[in-house]
Amino acid sequence: MRGTEEFRILIEQQLNDLDFPNDPVRLYDPIRYTLSLGGKRLRPILVLMGAELAGEDFNAAMKPALGMELFHNFTLLHDDIMDNAPLRRGKPTVFKKWSCNIAILSGDVMFTEASRLISDAPLNCLKEVLDVFYKTAKEVCEGQQMDMDYEERDDVSVSEYMEMIRKKTAVLLGASLQIGALCGGADSEKAERLYAAGCHFGLAFQLQDDLLDVFGDPDVFGKQQGGDIISDKKTFLRLRALEIAEGDNKEALKNSFNIKSEIDKINSVTALFNELGIKEETFREIKRQLHLGEDSLQKTGFASEKLDALKGLTAGLLMRTT
Amino acid sequence: MRGTEEFRILIEQQLNDLDFPNDPVRLYDPIRYTLSLGGKRLRPILVLMGAELAGEDFNAAMKPALGMELFHNFTLLHDDIMDNAPLRRGKPTVFKKWSCNIAILSGDVMFTEASRLISDAPLNCLKEVLDVFYKTAKEVCEGQQMDMDYEERDDVSVSEYMEMIRKKTAVLLGASLQIGALCGGADSEKAERLYAAGCHFGLAFQLQDDLLDVFGDPDVFGKQQGGDIISDKKTFLRLRALEIAEGDNKEALKNSFNIKSEIDKINSVTALFNELGIKEETFREIKRQLHLGEDSLQKTGFASEKLDALKGLTAGLLMRTT
Repeated sequence: MRGTEEFRILIEQQLNDLDFPNDPVRLYDPIRYTLSLGGKRLRPILVLMGAELAGEDFNAAMKPALGMELFHNFTLLHDDIMDNAPLRRGKPTVFKKWSCNIAILSGDVMFTEASRLISDAPLNCLKEVLDVFYKTAKEVCEGQQMDMDYEERDDVSVSEYMEMIRKKTAVLLGASLQIGALCGGADSEKAERLYAAGCHFGLAFQLQDDLLDVFGDPDVFGKQQGGDIISDKKTFLRLRALEIAEGDNKEALKNSFNIKSEIDKINSVTALFNELGIKEETFREIKRQLHLGEDSLQKTGFASEKLDALKGLTAGLLMRTT
Repeated sequence: MRGTEEFRILIEQQLNDLDFPNDPVRLYDPIRYTLSLGGKRLRPILVLMGAELAGEDFNAAMKPALGMELFHNFTLLHDDIMDNAPLRRGKPTVFKKWSCNIAILSGDVMFTEASRLISDAPLNCLKEVLDVFYKTAKEVCEGQQMDMDYEERDDVSVSEYMEMIRKKTAVLLGASLQIGALCGGADSEKAERLYAAGCHFGLAFQLQDDLLDVFGDPDVFGKQQGGDIISDKKTFLRLRALEIAEGDNKEALKNSFNIKSEIDKINSVTALFNELGIKEETFREIKRQLHLGEDSLQKTGFASEKLDALKGLTAGLLMRTT
C-alpha cells in the first residue's frame, strides 16, 4: 500500500496537468487560482486508497479522484459567496478577488469538469459510481442549506447538528472511499462499508475542528483560537453545552452573544465549557465515531495490513490536537 | 412519429411527477417554483424526438429528457442572478423572490438532479451521452461568460457574437437531439448529424429572437418591442449594422446610447436598421442557418417522413414572426 504522501504528490502533479482553456479567461483563471491554493487533497487521496484497497492498481481511479477534488473546490467557491468569506487558505476568495458572478459561473464549470472526470470511472462500475456521486453531491447541497438555516434558529439540537455535518462534510469523504473502491473492483457491499467508515471518520474530523477552535494550540492549528465563539457559531461544543447546562450556566451561555470584548467572550464561554466538561464530551463523541468507523473498516474484510495506511491517515489527522 | 404537443404534455406530466424532498424547504421550493413557471419544454421535446427518430421507443430517453429541461432551468436560475433579472416568464426570479444565496444553492442541486437524470440513459450509450452532456454544459458556461465579457467591450464582431450564441443557446438544442438519438439506439454518426442540425436551428431561433425584439408584433410575441435597443444590447442586428454602416450612420448608431427618450431611441435605431437593410440581412442569416440545419437532417439518412415532426416544430417556432 502506498503512503499518503506518495498519493498526495501524485495528485498534485495530476491536478497541475489538468489543461483548462485560456478563454474565456475570467471563467478559467479562478479555477487555476483555486487549485493553486493547495489543500490537504484528502478526498482524492481517499479515492486512491479505496482503489488500492480493492485492487492492485489505483490508476483506474485517478480521474475520479481528481473529480472529487474539483467537486470539493467547487463547493468551497460557492460556499464562500454564501458565507461572505473574505479569505480561503489565507488568500482572497474568488468572489472577493473577482466578483460574485465570476465565482458562480466558475463554480458551475468546475462542477461540470468534476462530473466529467468522475464519469471516466471504469465502464463496468460507471453507473454505480455516478449514483454514489450524485446522491452525495445532493446531500452536500442539503448540508450547506441546513447550515444556513441553522444560523437563523435558536433551537438547533445536537442530533440536527450531527446530521448537518454528516451531509455537509462527512458523506463526501465516505463517497471518496466508496468510489475509489468501486473503481478498484470492489463489490458493492465492501464499497458501502468503506463509505460508512469514511462518514464516521468525517464526523470525527469535523468534531475535532470544533474542538480545536476552542482548545487547540493556535501555533499548531494555524487558526485564531476562539473564532467560533466570537462569531457565536453553533458548533457541537456550544450545542451540547446548551443541552446539558442548567440555571445560571444556561442563561450565561445563551447571553454570551452580548459580551462585547472578544477576549472576555472567549474566556467566559471557555470557562462554561470547562465547568460543563464539554471537552471530554466532545472527545467521547470523536472516539465513538472513530470506533464506529474502525468497525466498518474491519467488516470490509480487507486484510488488516492493507488497512494500515488508511488507519494511519485517520490517526494522523486526529493528532492535530497536540 | 408523435407530435410536439403530445410530447409536451407527456413531459409536463413527468416533470410534475418528479419527487423533490420537502426538506430543506428553501433548497427545494425554488426548484418546484421554477418548474411550475412552465416554458416551451423545447429541449426535452427534442430529446424525445431524437429518440423516436432513431428507434421505436422514446421511453429510454425520458429521464435524460427531463434532465435536459432541469439543466436548462438551472442555467436560467444562475443567469438571472448574473443578469440581475427581476422577472422570468412574468414572475419574480428565484433570487428576487428568495435571495442570491438560495438561487445559487438551489441551482447547484438542480444541476445535480439534471446530471443524475441524464445518467439514467441506457447503459450501452451512457458514456457517450455523458461526454456530450458535459461538453455541452461546459460550453453553455463559456457562452454565458462570453456574453458578460461582451457587455464590457465595444468591438464585438458578428462572428464573435455567433460563436457566443452558439455556445450559450444553440449547442444545448443540438445536444438534446443527439442525446435522444443515442438513447434511441442511433449510431454516433447519425447522432452527430442531428447535433449539427440542432445547433443550426438554435442559431436561427436566437437570431429570430433578436429580430422579433425590433420588428415583431408585441401582441403576438408578448415582449415589449425595442427592449434590446433601449438596453443597448449587442444583438446580431446592432453588430451587423455597425459592421456595414458608414459615415454619419455609423456615428449615429454608436452614439444611440446617449438618446434619453426611450421612444426616440427605438425610432432612431429602427430607422437606421431600415436604412441599412438589417431586417433583410438577419432574415438571410436565419435562412442560411435553416438550410444548413436541413442539410444536416437529410444527411442523417432517416426516412424523410420521420423527419417531418422535427421540421414542423422548427417551422412552427420560426413562424412566431407573424
